[in-house]
Amino acid sequence: MSQLRQDPVTCQWVAIATERAKRPMSFMRSARAGASITQPDAECPFCAGHESETPPELMAIRPSGGEANRPGWLVRVVPNLFPAFTPSNAPALVKEQGIYQVMDGIGAHEVVILSPSHTADLGTLSQPSLLVVIQTYIARYQVNCARSNLQYLMIISNNGKEAGASLAHPHSQLFGLPIIPPAVQCEIDGVARYRDASGRCVYCEIIRFEVASGERVVYSNDDFLVYCPFASRLPFESSIIPRWHASHFEAMSDAQQRSFADAVHQLTSRLSHGLGDPPYNLYIHTAPCHAGPDIDYHWHLELLPRLTIQAGFEWGSGIMINTSTPEAAAEFLRDVEVGEWSTAG
Amino acid sequence: MSQLRQDPVTCQWVAIATERAKRPMSFMRSARAGASITQPDAECPFCAGHESETPPELMAIRPSGGEANRPGWLVRVVPNLFPAFTPSNAPALVKEQGIYQVMDGIGAHEVVILSPSHTADLGTLSQPSLLVVIQTYIARYQVNCARSNLQYLMIISNNGKEAGASLAHPHSQLFGLPIIPPAVQCEIDGVARYRDASGRCVYCEIIRFEVASGERVVYSNDDFLVYCPFASRLPFESSIIPRWHASHFEAMSDAQQRSFADAVHQLTSRLSHGLGDPPYNLYIHTAPCHAGPDIDYHWHLELLPRLTIQAGFEWGSGIMINTSTPEAAAEFLRDVEVGEWSTAG
Repeated sequence: MSQLRQDPVTCQWVAIATERAKRPMSFMRSARAGASITQPDAECPFCAGHESETPPELMAIRPSGGEANRPGWLVRVVPNLFPAFTPSNAPALVKEQGIYQVMDGIGAHEVVILSPSHTADLGTLSQPSLLVVIQTYIARYQVNCARSNLQYLMIISNNGKEAGASLAHPHSQLFGLPIIPPAVQCEIDGVARYRDASGRCVYCEIIRFEVASGERVVYSNDDFLVYCPFASRLPFESSIIPRWHASHFEAMSDAQQRSFADAVHQLTSRLSHGLGDPPYNLYIHTAPCHAGPDIDYHWHLELLPRLTIQAGFEWGSGIMINTSTPEAAAEFLRDVEVGEWSTAG
Repeated sequence: MSQLRQDPVTCQWVAIATERAKRPMSFMRSARAGASITQPDAECPFCAGHESETPPELMAIRPSGGEANRPGWLVRVVPNLFPAFTPSNAPALVKEQGIYQVMDGIGAHEVVILSPSHTADLGTLSQPSLLVVIQTYIARYQVNCARSNLQYLMIISNNGKEAGASLAHPHSQLFGLPIIPPAVQCEIDGVARYRDASGRCVYCEIIRFEVASGERVVYSNDDFLVYCPFASRLPFESSIIPRWHASHFEAMSDAQQRSFADAVHQLTSRLSHGLGDPPYNLYIHTAPCHAGPDIDYHWHLELLPRLTIQAGFEWGSGIMINTSTPEAAAEFLRDVEVGEWSTAG
C-alpha cells in the first residue's frame, strides 16, 4: 500500500506510491530514452477482446447484456494494475513517524476505458458514447463516495504522453482519497471568503462577468459555459462550469448530463482540431464525498493543455508564467470549426 | 510589460508574460515538433566571443580586467531578451480590472551565464568558478533587493530541455518580483506555526532528525546538509540547507560560501554521474528582500530532477505522486563516486 507523507513545513501531502515505485536505476539515462505509448491494437490491454489482460472489471456498460470480462461493452471500469491508492476497510488515520506525519494510502484507483476503440477519445466519441462515459463517472463516484474512509473522488483524464498518459487507448482514472485534496479545499475556502465579503458565489460572479464580456468565452449552451479563465495558468487552459449554482456534479439531471456532454465535446474537439491533438490533463472539481447538499461550492471541469514546461521559476515560486493570453486562446478556439456530432450508438 | 493576474477563487497570482507571449498558431502540432536546445558553440549567444548577441551586460567578473561586452569574463549577467518581469521606477500597485485584480509585471529578469564554456554546468564547474557564480548571485541579489518596489528575488537554474531550459549553455536566471511568492510565504507561515507550537525552528528540527537517522542524507560538510526530504514530491528531490539557523542566504561568510559551493558540487555531480545528466530545476528559498535580519526563516536550496510527468491527478489535487522513495534515492546518491574536484582557476 502507498503512503501519504506530510511536509512538516508546508503541510502538503505527498503520495509515496510504493506499488508504483521504481528502482533508482530505472531513472538512469539509458532507461529514460525512447519509451513510447503508441501501441497497435493487437497489444493493447484496453481494446475489445483483451479483457483478460486487465484485472477483473468493477463495472461495465453492456447494452445487449453478456458476460463480464468479455467483449460487448461500451465503457469498462477496471482496477488500476499499479494503484496509487488501495481499497481498505480500515479507518484512515494520521500516524507519527519520528517528527513526521503519515497516513496509509487508503482509497481507490480505477481506470475507466472510454470505449472499445483504440482511438476514440473524448473529442471524437459519439454523443451516446460520451453520455455513457459521464453516467459511468457518476456511478463510480456514488459507489466510492459511499465508503466512510474516503473523503474525495478525483476524476481525471490524461491525453497524450507529454500529459503523463502511459497507455494510448483513451481512458480516465478515478482516485479515491482519504483526505480532501488541497486544490479543492483551497477553492472551497475561496468561495467562503468571497461569500463572507459580498454575499455572492464567486463562480456565479465569474460566469456573469464572462458572459457579459464574452472575450474569454469559447462556447456556451443553456446549462454550461466553456471559457478560458482570466488568470489562466497555462496556454489554452479552459473551464466548463454549470451556469446554475451547483455543488455536486453527480446531481445533474439527464438533460444537464446531455448539456455537459455537449460542452465536453465542444471543448475537446475544438482543441483537437485547432491545435492538432494537443496533450492535455482534465479533472473535475466537485464537492467532497460527505459534504452534504448544502455545501457552498460550485463544481466545474478544468482542462490544462500541456504545451509548455513548468520550470524552476514556477516550482520555486508557485507562480505560473503563461506565455499566451486567455483572450487570444478563447478567440482562437471560438473560431475552430467543429463538424457534425455523430449520434450513432 | 507582463501582467500579474490573480485568480479570484484561489487568490493565486499568474504572470501573463506578454513580452514572451506566443501567437496561438505557435502551439499547433506542426510548430510543436522537433525543437531542440542543443546548439553548436558557433551559434550560441552565451559563448565567449558572442557577447554582442545578448543585451549589454549588467555585470561580469573579469579577473584580468578588460572591456565590458568583450571576452575575458568568468561569469556574465545580462538582461533576459524576453523578460517575464521588467525593471521600473513605478510603485507596484494592485489594480481592478472588472471583477479581477491585476498588477503590472514590475521586477527583473536577468540571466547569469555560468561560464564561457558551452558545457561547464553546476556539476562540472571548477571550485573557483562555482564560487564566483555564488558570489555573483549574492551581488545581483543585493542590487535588485535594494529596489523598494521589489519584494523577492528568485534565483533558479533549469538544466536540460525537459526541465524547461531553452538554451543549452549553462545559465541561471534571476526573477525580481513585486510580490512575495506563495511558495516562500507558505514556508514562512509554516515556520511561524511550528515555532508557536513548539518554540523551535521546524527546519532545525528536520536537520537534527535527518542527521541522527541518516537514511535520507546524501552528503554533509561542516556547514551544510544535503538530503532527500521525507515528503519528496519527485524522485530524487533534494535539499541543501545550512546546518545553522540562518534566514538570509546572501549573509554567508566567505568560508560558508565555500562550504555551500562544495555542497552544490557534491549534489549536482552525484546526480549527473549517477543518473546520466538528468534534467532538473533548482531554486533558492531565502528571506524576502525587505524582511530584515530578524525574520524567522531558514534558507535552503531545493533541487527537483524532472524524471516523471505531473499529470491530471497532481494538477487537480495538489498532491504529488512520487514513484520512488527518498530513502532509496538518498542511498543511491550516497553511493555515487564523485571524482577529484578541480581547483584550477
